[in-house]
Amino acid sequence: MASYTMSITIPRPYDETVAAVREQLTEAGFGVLTEIDIKATLKAKLDVDVAPQVILGACRPQLAHLALEAEPSIAAMLPCNVVVRSTPDGTVVEAFDPQVMMSFAGDGAAGEALKAVASDARDRLSAALTALNKEEAR
Amino acid sequence: MASYTMSITIPRPYDETVAAVREQLTEAGFGVLTEIDIKATLKAKLDVDVAPQVILGACRPQLAHLALEAEPSIAAMLPCNVVVRSTPDGTVVEAFDPQVMMSFAGDGAAGEALKAVASDARDRLSAALTALNKEEAR
Repeated sequence: MASYTMSITIPRPYDETVAAVREQLTEAGFGVLTEIDIKATLKAKLDVDVAPQVILGACRPQLAHLALEAEPSIAAMLPCNVVVRSTPDGTVVEAFDPQVMMSFAGDGAAGEALKAVASDARDRLSAALTALNKEEAR
Repeated sequence: MASYTMSITIPRPYDETVAAVREQLTEAGFGVLTEIDIKATLKAKLDVDVAPQVILGACRPQLAHLALEAEPSIAAMLPCNVVVRSTPDGTVVEAFDPQVMMSFAGDGAAGEALKAVASDARDRLSAALTALNKEEAR
């Protein structure tokens, strides 16, 4: 796990995990605005074979709105990516850690607003990952 | 301009700038994999009105492949967002600065590979922004 992500690895098939991640993101209050099939894209563009992996762009409009009001530039870090990829050890679900946004937040009211948004987003993403782990353990 | 972006402001209409940004990203070797119309999304989801703004997800497959080979987690920071938004001072074009990725790169071969990729992506995005500025000055 990288320092800029939150990640879990579960012994569940890739396709099933992608569907479960979408469900848990919905439960946690996120919509999925974008989807990039990395495997398909690299195959189509470069004719290389990589493991199945997808980038889901998760967005909670209420939080995005607050963040943009505080700092328009934050759009460059939206939506929040949640990556699902197949590995020999299981299926990895790895979300961009909103904490990274907090590390770029300045002082003052805008910075405080941004930190509050990032903290809320982080709690929601953590809850989604925890729920996925529990589902698996059921 | 935030510390995590590269940005220009040009006196050019928003719609025309979005089209020009797409062209310059193509020139610079990027494909646009995703597009999020922030204004339309926030209107649809929250019924709030914000300035016209869009997030274009730019990706150079060759670079993405190298980055993912070096560090699979980097998918959480892909694609590279290029935001276009209308402001009272002109149209802002603001790209996520790949330098941020470099700041998370570790030591060793993988870290070096990631830094090389980020540096290449940064040069290309800079070139696209410079070209947009020149177009405007024509």
